[in-house]
Amino acid sequence: MRIGVLTGGGDCPGLNAVLRAVVRTSVIEYGSEVIGFRNGWRGLLDDEATPLDIGKVDKLLTRGGTTLGTMRAAPQALHDGLGRTRQVLDDHGIDVLIPIGGEGTLTAAAWLSDEGVPVVGVPKTIDNDIDCTDLTFGFDTAVSIATDMIDRLHTTAESHQRVLLVEVMGRHAGWIAMHAGMAAGAHLILMPEQPFDVEEICQLISARFDRGDTHVIAVISEGATPKPGTMELRDGGIDEFGHRRFTGVAQQLGWELEARSGKEVRTTVLGHVQRGGTPTSFDRVLATRFGMHAAHAAHRGDFGNMVALHGTEIALVPLKEAVARLKTVPPDRIAELSAFTG
Amino acid sequence: MRIGVLTGGGDCPGLNAVLRAVVRTSVIEYGSEVIGFRNGWRGLLDDEATPLDIGKVDKLLTRGGTTLGTMRAAPQALHDGLGRTRQVLDDHGIDVLIPIGGEGTLTAAAWLSDEGVPVVGVPKTIDNDIDCTDLTFGFDTAVSIATDMIDRLHTTAESHQRVLLVEVMGRHAGWIAMHAGMAAGAHLILMPEQPFDVEEICQLISARFDRGDTHVIAVISEGATPKPGTMELRDGGIDEFGHRRFTGVAQQLGWELEARSGKEVRTTVLGHVQRGGTPTSFDRVLATRFGMHAAHAAHRGDFGNMVALHGTEIALVPLKEAVARLKTVPPDRIAELSAFTG
Amino acid sequence: MRIGVLTGGGDCPGLNAVLRAVVRTSVIEYGSEVIGFRNGWRGLLDDEATPLDIGKVDKLLTRGGTTLGTMRAAPQALHDGLGRTRQVLDDHGIDVLIPIGGEGTLTAAAWLSDEGVPVVGVPKTIDNDIDCTDLTFGFDTAVSIATDMIDRLHTTAESHQRVLLVEVMGRHAGWIAMHAGMAAGAHLILMPEQPFDVEEICQLISARFDRGDTHVIAVISEGATPKPGTMELRDGGIDEFGHRRFTGVAQQLGWELEARSGKEVRTTVLGHVQRGGTPTSFDRVLATRFGMHAAHAAHRGDFGNMVALHGTEIALVPLKEAVARLKTVPPDRIAELSAFTG
Amino acid sequence: MRIGVLTGGGDCPGLNAVLRAVVRTSVIEYGSEVIGFRNGWRGLLDDEATPLDIGKVDKLLTRGGTTLGTMRAAPQALHDGLGRTRQVLDDHGIDVLIPIGGEGTLTAAAWLSDEGVPVVGVPKTIDNDIDCTDLTFGFDTAVSIATDMIDRLHTTAESHQRVLLVEVMGRHAGWIAMHAGMAAGAHLILMPEQPFDVEEICQLISARFDRGDTHVIAVISEGATPKPGTMELRDGGIDEFGHRRFTGVAQQLGWELEARSGKEVRTTVLGHVQRGGTPTSFDRVLATRFGMHAAHAAHRGDFGNMVALHGTEIALVPLKEAVARLKTVPPDRIAELSAFTG
Repeated sequence: MRIGVLTGGGDCPGLNAVLRAVVRTSVIEYGSEVIGFRNGWRGLLDDEATPLDIGKVDKLLTRGGTTLGTMRAAPQALHDGLGRTRQVLDDHGIDVLIPIGGEGTLTAAAWLSDEGVPVVGVPKTIDNDIDCTDLTFGFDTAVSIATDMIDRLHTTAESHQRVLLVEVMGRHAGWIAMHAGMAAGAHLILMPEQPFDVEEICQLISARFDRGDTHVIAVISEGATPKPGTMELRDGGIDEFGHRRFTGVAQQLGWELEARSGKEVRTTVLGHVQRGGTPTSFDRVLATRFGMHAAHAAHRGDFGNMVALHGTEIALVPLKEAVARLKTVPPDRIAELSAFTG
Repeated sequence: MRIGVLTGGGDCPGLNAVLRAVVRTSVIEYGSEVIGFRNGWRGLLDDEATPLDIGKVDKLLTRGGTTLGTMRAAPQALHDGLGRTRQVLDDHGIDVLIPIGGEGTLTAAAWLSDEGVPVVGVPKTIDNDIDCTDLTFGFDTAVSIATDMIDRLHTTAESHQRVLLVEVMGRHAGWIAMHAGMAAGAHLILMPEQPFDVEEICQLISARFDRGDTHVIAVISEGATPKPGTMELRDGGIDEFGHRRFTGVAQQLGWELEARSGKEVRTTVLGHVQRGGTPTSFDRVLATRFGMHAAHAAHRGDFGNMVALHGTEIALVPLKEAVARLKTVPPDRIAELSAFTG
Repeated sequence: MRIGVLTGGGDCPGLNAVLRAVVRTSVIEYGSEVIGFRNGWRGLLDDEATPLDIGKVDKLLTRGGTTLGTMRAAPQALHDGLGRTRQVLDDHGIDVLIPIGGEGTLTAAAWLSDEGVPVVGVPKTIDNDIDCTDLTFGFDTAVSIATDMIDRLHTTAESHQRVLLVEVMGRHAGWIAMHAGMAAGAHLILMPEQPFDVEEICQLISARFDRGDTHVIAVISEGATPKPGTMELRDGGIDEFGHRRFTGVAQQLGWELEARSGKEVRTTVLGHVQRGGTPTSFDRVLATRFGMHAAHAAHRGDFGNMVALHGTEIALVPLKEAVARLKTVPPDRIAELSAFTG
Repeated sequence: MRIGVLTGGGDCPGLNAVLRAVVRTSVIEYGSEVIGFRNGWRGLLDDEATPLDIGKVDKLLTRGGTTLGTMRAAPQALHDGLGRTRQVLDDHGIDVLIPIGGEGTLTAAAWLSDEGVPVVGVPKTIDNDIDCTDLTFGFDTAVSIATDMIDRLHTTAESHQRVLLVEVMGRHAGWIAMHAGMAAGAHLILMPEQPFDVEEICQLISARFDRGDTHVIAVISEGATPKPGTMELRDGGIDEFGHRRFTGVAQQLGWELEARSGKEVRTTVLGHVQRGGTPTSFDRVLATRFGMHAAHAAHRGDFGNMVALHGTEIALVPLKEAVARLKTVPPDRIAELSAFTG
């Protein structure tokens, strides 16, 4: 059998571990061959194929990023190129395609599956917002890095009696903010699921300093937004350098809090370091199991599905179901935070 | 309400995070008080009580070990001292006791519950072998440390073309060996669940060197045993120093492999470093949620149960059910390793 | 004898280790007492004194920040308050003052010494730009953190074929950029000591991609500046939010490079995480030795000096000499980089 | 010009960084070629040559171990094989040989230099015991790992009120024990330079527990020895498994202390993990500078020397002088510990 594989969307610690597992399982358990396509869907359309064997994936387990390279999904190009896609897959004799990627990649995979292309998906998202799976690889690494950084910021905040805002990833879901905030003992956690009230935050800050606490650490998802009417998030427009200005929510909130509270407020944006580098042991195991089970599903003919973590087991769920909605933090998980912030 | 809490058995990263969560939830959500008993069940019988408030648990989230101290369970003393236990709890006006511990502690808790003492348990085991919960805190930290260490050993083994055996924790279950072995790309993983055949291991070693590989890394649970007839694990008897000799399975296997294979074999026993130090972010979150939900259960009157992780939710399971058997690695998980070793 | 101690300026990993060493050496070796002043020179003027004994410094070795708190130096207030300073020191019976701080703190210390106040200084600078000492504590920690972060960014840059700019600390000296850049294999290192030429950087970027390299990592001191005429660093003025805009050199260079090179360029500003958290073992040893030798000098009456690292020995150098100039990266060290960048 | 390079003795974090620097400097600055010999001196005699270019050393900076492999020095074979050595070097047109290694390798290099072979040495020792240089690469990594591990052991020792002995590397010199012990706040540091008195250690343990301290951590060089008459270190003889028994000093001391003090004593032997894995940023910079300056010296014709760190500068010292004696911890450094142990 011949398996095709590609990685789409932003990079994520564990992608290489998935590739290694797909190759090892396919070659060792089934005697199959694996062809990788470089640079995501774009590379598939451009036929950037490269054979992957056990030697090529030998040192990949501990490496971040993706040896295949990746490119942000261009769904329209893919739709337009269905014929081309079939042809490239046929040219290489690909029996099943295993796309590894986020919402965009999996939506494309679901559509290809509907069009009759044999597909098994592997979910990938730093933000942990893909539905129908307990967790995705990369998330634990991002939370670990963010937690390490916030641990470090505590002592600086204490020494200078400051308010420190830390912006973490999470455009649509607050999983990273919630987990890193809980793990690092943040006093405030702001997530997209629950718009924040600037006045309440000012009161929390005052209350802490009034009762003798030395500092405030707040963790903020990049996608957090204020309650309408309490503060306005502004688009940066065109700045003095002639560039489109982007100023994140944490920075804008920081300015607002400094103005209103009179305290020294500093903002740190963690950025790309959350998605790079060697995966945690948790993510290496999860990525390996995802890759292994995707290869098994491919050889069994269980097409149109995505691998998923349910408890301690790897399950298969229909791609269509998985991409129907994003998985956000549910209200009962947000309620859990009440005794751990403030 | 008054909550009693104690930590029993060996120490484990995350114990302090559980204590912090029990205190914060009880005090902030319910206005209750919390009394800690030092040094496990022994300290309860000796009435080593100490009040715990929010200030006392303030810096505990990131610290390993247990601020209450711990002592190995002495079940017989506890059985004999039931009257004494009731009296100490009554003296302090304890409404519910939250024991945090492993199999021994939870078995004692189940028995106390049968005797009518209101109890909510929190499972604690580095080895991850407590049943009815997907995972326990401390395990992820132990696997992370072991993985880091094995990552480091790879380069030494390569440079010297050696066979390296690494003994990790796991007396009755191979979870740490399996996860650390998968995460670090070990070529061989030996667990208590599946007795090993020395001759097969020699063949695997020869096969690797014959096909040009530079080294072999094997991860071995401390509780792994040979297949009867293939090698004899010896009790060390009384050694030349007049001490009871203990030589672990990895060391004995190492000697055997060196003798049989003619290769240079080195053994590393990771030991206590696996159970000390700051918990991973994963374990901090899990321990916090366990402590929080135990406090909620205590206040709701859900006695005789243990908190447990089911998927992403914290559930309650009857203590009796949880201690009925150890959770070992099931055959289908062992089978998963076939493409990742050798 | 009675020793006074304070920490001035920004916080720095190792400050607590210096405090611990001053206290342990003074108490154990000399039977002296130690009084700490909170919040730097400001706290001295305000008489925020607190006795420090061995118990109080017991857990400080591994903690970042400073248990005494710190405040940016206000030299004029100090000059105006010389009489007040003498009086506070006299009130507490302080025989020698040990100020731990950067250029500002040490300059104040030199001036106090001239005025007859017995002083022994301890140099502190993340940036490593204090003269007359090979190294200062905190620097190794900052370089380690920056290196870890750049290691992580490599894989992201590779996966996306990007140019990544990383801004590190170093207002007047490029030590952190040079060391972290060498340690992490950066392709370009920009420092205050050598103004950069944007056109040359564009050529370097083109040359790398032309010969098949997958990415470019540049490390940039916050104090780096362009060669006059090649690019203009702009003051941000008042921005669209009504705040004084600060846009760092790396961000401005990033926009410029993206516009000129047509490549995707991303900028990461590491910020405060470089100065927080537990010190490296190197910094713990250096800070401990600095504190110990400062206490010895104080007891020997070697006033007006600063402790310094010369090779492997701790020496004393006159404070006046140490603050006469900043230590920047010399031309022969910059020349060393020629085979390691590009 | 043609440069030969080899790595001898045990592996060490930073070896690959030296190789990378030798190659980059030779190729980029001088247009020279570099030939590596695999497996140390043995591989030179066996002519296991492999050309090294910039591509081959591209990813080596962060990797532990040595890509060339290494083998323990066999000096006699080398002496016998002088003619063979010259011939192999001639066959490959090698103008200068750069051996990277410890005392054995450098002694061989000094001898080859006397015989007229152009040689520039690079010192390599985890133990930091090569003379005439302030530090060697690998040492900082070993100290960092040991410190991390001891940090972790503190919480276990506290929770169980134990005495914990940690054996670290250092056969002839106590540098690792001293630095890791100072960095991790050990209560006792035992080194080869100062034989220990078991009775004094028992008194220190009693004194700590008597005054309410919760635990004792001792760091012990593998080469530490007892004062004659206070305890006998025994050779293990042939053990019950028919193997030559080796029981390290820490283990034997642990048994002795448990017997004499009545306290629970546990021993951890850190072993190979101290010498594997990615080097610290400090070691990467030092190794890079050593390799770079060795290549410059080779091209300048400064033969018979070894690169060395003097303060912040890389110097050259005659190989003969460097190998004349081992660098042990001097008495004034040992005296520094008095306020930091006990």
